[in-house]
Amino acid sequence: MKYCPSCAHTLAIRIPEGDSLPRYVCEACGEIHYRNPRLVVGCVPVWEGRILLCRRAIEPRYGYWTTPAGFLENDETCEEGAARETEEEARARVEVGSPLAMMDVVHARQVHLMYRARMLDASHEAGPESLETALVDPDAIPWEELAFPSIRFSLEAWLKDRESGREDFHVSHVRRRGW
Amino acid sequence: MKYCPSCAHTLAIRIPEGDSLPRYVCEACGEIHYRNPRLVVGCVPVWEGRILLCRRAIEPRYGYWTTPAGFLENDETCEEGAARETEEEARARVEVGSPLAMMDVVHARQVHLMYRARMLDASHEAGPESLETALVDPDAIPWEELAFPSIRFSLEAWLKDRESGREDFHVSHVRRRGW
Repeated sequence: MKYCPSCAHTLAIRIPEGDSLPRYVCEACGEIHYRNPRLVVGCVPVWEGRILLCRRAIEPRYGYWTTPAGFLENDETCEEGAARETEEEARARVEVGSPLAMMDVVHARQVHLMYRARMLDASHEAGPESLETALVDPDAIPWEELAFPSIRFSLEAWLKDRESGREDFHVSHVRRRGW
Repeated sequence: MKYCPSCAHTLAIRIPEGDSLPRYVCEACGEIHYRNPRLVVGCVPVWEGRILLCRRAIEPRYGYWTTPAGFLENDETCEEGAARETEEEARARVEVGSPLAMMDVVHARQVHLMYRARMLDASHEAGPESLETALVDPDAIPWEELAFPSIRFSLEAWLKDRESGREDFHVSHVRRRGW
């Protein structure tokens, strides 16, 4: 971020009065441009005991498996975002349930929030961001080929709940790239 | 947003190839500038059965009561953000517990996430964004003078859990300004 999105003047980086952190500040128009973490929303879609996974057709982690997930857009709820991403990435229609897992991905400036979800029918297909989609038996989850720690965490949470018979909300965080 | 933060060229609004929503796009440098909802994190700090509230010294809702909460910053977890806001707004030190309540505030393009929290000692004091702070008996919560629906929702969730003896994660959303 170099130029003011409001007036195109060169931005300074300084701590505004009454604040405690350095911000992008426009000395011409006075505007402060905050940068904050973004929310990634997704779900674990299930059909007859099997889990819907997508193999990524985009970077990062091209070729690795993920549950449907992506950035929350303006003007939608997190649940709506999770359903939208499922439609976009796996061409599947879901009823989104309760929150399953949240992971702070601090180094990426993201918070990943995953829901339980019930597929409304068995149909699924790769959207433009997926190489393929698959309904996977929980015993056959490709743990070594998962795209991100938050996907592993969500699937582990889902398995724990199946074991316990409860619907807990599981939280964790990661501060560094890698596993 | 009028000018490209990277090169200062005038921005266009159009749907990029492979995307489905209009974005701010720079036709000069090619960069796409996404706008996404922001996370507000906070907590319900408790000391000996009483809840710590702050009366806002800033707009919006100047003079109304809130629990400590504010925008999640880069490079911190949601729990750390909730503790930081409590220190900033109420000069209180807390141990942040489990997630209590989440509300999608769709019209404001925010998601509010509130945690349970235990005050480490009884001390509290108005920070620069508060007019005053108070430890309030749950029976004396000023329901008519709360700042935001998410604050009401979090306090109602806290009371429900006290009733049930459980620690549930409560979710809701609001699409329009007002109650």
